[in-house]
Amino acid sequence: MTSAQQQALADEYRDRLLNDTLPFWFPRCVDETHGGYFSFFDRGGSLIDTDKSVWAQGRMAWLLATLHATVEPRPEWLSWARHGIDFLKTHCVDADGQLYFQVDREGRPLRKRRYAYSEAFMAMALAAYARAAADDDAAREARQMFAAFRHLTTAPGLLPAKTDPSTRPAKSLGIPMITMGVAQTLRESLGDDGELRALIDTCIEEIRSDFVHPELECVLETVAPDGSFLDHVDGRLLNPGHAIEAAWFILEESRARGGDADLTALGLQILDWMWARGWDTEHGGLLSFVDVRGLPVQEYWHDMKFWWPHNEAIIATLSAWLLTGDALYARMHDQVHAWAHDHFADAVHGEWYGYLHRDGSVASGLKGGLWKSAFHLPRMQLTCWQLLTRAG
Amino acid sequence: MTSAQQQALADEYRDRLLNDTLPFWFPRCVDETHGGYFSFFDRGGSLIDTDKSVWAQGRMAWLLATLHATVEPRPEWLSWARHGIDFLKTHCVDADGQLYFQVDREGRPLRKRRYAYSEAFMAMALAAYARAAADDDAAREARQMFAAFRHLTTAPGLLPAKTDPSTRPAKSLGIPMITMGVAQTLRESLGDDGELRALIDTCIEEIRSDFVHPELECVLETVAPDGSFLDHVDGRLLNPGHAIEAAWFILEESRARGGDADLTALGLQILDWMWARGWDTEHGGLLSFVDVRGLPVQEYWHDMKFWWPHNEAIIATLSAWLLTGDALYARMHDQVHAWAHDHFADAVHGEWYGYLHRDGSVASGLKGGLWKSAFHLPRMQLTCWQLLTRAG
Repeated sequence: MTSAQQQALADEYRDRLLNDTLPFWFPRCVDETHGGYFSFFDRGGSLIDTDKSVWAQGRMAWLLATLHATVEPRPEWLSWARHGIDFLKTHCVDADGQLYFQVDREGRPLRKRRYAYSEAFMAMALAAYARAAADDDAAREARQMFAAFRHLTTAPGLLPAKTDPSTRPAKSLGIPMITMGVAQTLRESLGDDGELRALIDTCIEEIRSDFVHPELECVLETVAPDGSFLDHVDGRLLNPGHAIEAAWFILEESRARGGDADLTALGLQILDWMWARGWDTEHGGLLSFVDVRGLPVQEYWHDMKFWWPHNEAIIATLSAWLLTGDALYARMHDQVHAWAHDHFADAVHGEWYGYLHRDGSVASGLKGGLWKSAFHLPRMQLTCWQLLTRAG
Repeated sequence: MTSAQQQALADEYRDRLLNDTLPFWFPRCVDETHGGYFSFFDRGGSLIDTDKSVWAQGRMAWLLATLHATVEPRPEWLSWARHGIDFLKTHCVDADGQLYFQVDREGRPLRKRRYAYSEAFMAMALAAYARAAADDDAAREARQMFAAFRHLTTAPGLLPAKTDPSTRPAKSLGIPMITMGVAQTLRESLGDDGELRALIDTCIEEIRSDFVHPELECVLETVAPDGSFLDHVDGRLLNPGHAIEAAWFILEESRARGGDADLTALGLQILDWMWARGWDTEHGGLLSFVDVRGLPVQEYWHDMKFWWPHNEAIIATLSAWLLTGDALYARMHDQVHAWAHDHFADAVHGEWYGYLHRDGSVASGLKGGLWKSAFHLPRMQLTCWQLLTRAG
């Protein structure tokens, strides 16, 4: 890639972010009456449910504050970020301090789940806002919320396990991976006295020693507490997009340390293995789930193509190419960029479809819901634009 | 349909049941070492996980005992039924009396869920076994287990609700429907002093008044406690196969009462509306989920074709035809019978695939798992064979 081609690609990501993705969501999703953000939208941007996803509140507030801090200080970005954080603080925290998963339009609780990801995304939002608004209270609250997330995910027995730990103790890739990602956000926004870096090291070592399985040439999603393979449907289940997200977090960590050969090698290894597992050589695109031995998986929608793994793979391949200069990664980036834009991008109404059939045809007109909001797609566009600009 | 055609169709269902479906499962699924039944099988019948589904234990023991009582008294059917019931009693009941959802091969607990369907299927198994073995203890245990199911599903707050009842109280079609189905099984197996019939009446009235919505021309899955429509993604979600299952339960009730015009009309109305909602006019087969207003649904796999709604629709259309003689239902039966056998039946390894893409291509080689076991397909084959034989 020449530097002119890099510049053109950077411009493409910037333009799609600023002129396609953000205008789909804002100001449409901002609930001026009851606070917070809507996220249930159909293809054309009509609101199909007024319920609110707590994950979406944190993720979208993080995005807006990050745009304000790193792109340009548009006042509406900051005030909309504050709008989401206010809703989170006022309505999304249960009496026990844990966050809900879904609330109604007015902010009354609907669902609470056995995860702490609401806490993780709220910590990211608070940290990004603290930086954007130079708000020390928000910085303090971000650290408190991250501590709450850490407590929930490390204190034994606090969150109910998926399988009875007395029969089959298990742990998930999501915990060290999201812990690392939030710690990176806190460090970027609030600085670090060394504690966050040490925690990131611990997370990466746990991923390397317990979830990366060289004898299987893959990253497992669920393993025994000592990292051993659980030969059951859940233990064999691979989530290529999720592992590829972990890969680019690790490549980012290498970059943040000025290029760490060991971390770069780990990130590339994860990307290589999980691309080989997930890329659909018949129809293109990334499969959602595959079994480590090619057996049938319990998730019967396994071969659908979801938008977000493609966002993660676009970032990971670009990051790998910029770190190594290896043309293999430029080709992989071209490949996933082209397939994703050919199939997910909605040329009529903007933004991306979320859910395709295996053959790439659209399975749902849902543009947003409990899981899809203004997050993975704009994060990818912003991250790729910034990666290319920094490199250029 | 001439009586010769009816006889040929009866023979076809009988032959598929006895010579295709049952040989796929038995004796393969019987765990002679640790008790109970395996259910995780791939296309060719290889075991892909030794974990055990508690639903499957009850459902398969019910099937075996029912075969023994209504087809012929093969000793292996009765002893395999006992085998499943023993495993349920020994391993699947928690200290609080509630049943687990998934246990490991040795019967140690893995998962417990916020439903009481494990209890419902175990009550059905015990009742059918009591009849097959003329076992008074099993009859007593069946009534106790049904009482436990009733207690769990009627005592306020005992089972956690999906959405916070203080914000959005809701109830599900599954409760009156499964209550009715289990009550019908208990009555058929153990007799009735009038209490079961009264309970069935209550269930049917609840379905009619609260879940059947003539103004929307459909049966809703989730409504407010007073039956009003919840205009949110969950409230708008239709599950055509589930409602069509309710339809044939109601048609069976009409038949059990010697033909009840009111019940027949209700069952036919549900079948007509939900067929119109669920039948895929483009590719054939029944869609898994549709939104009452045609909006996108949160379940992104909504347009997959699952095996079991086709089993329910084959029974419902045949039952409707035999009750009314209306050629419309004979044509609908032909249509769903043909599509299902063309797409789900595995000509090489027997039994049916469980999960197809919308276009009818196979999405998974899974022949059994947590949800699919020897239940919906053989129940359909047995029920249709018996309906045609009784009518012939």
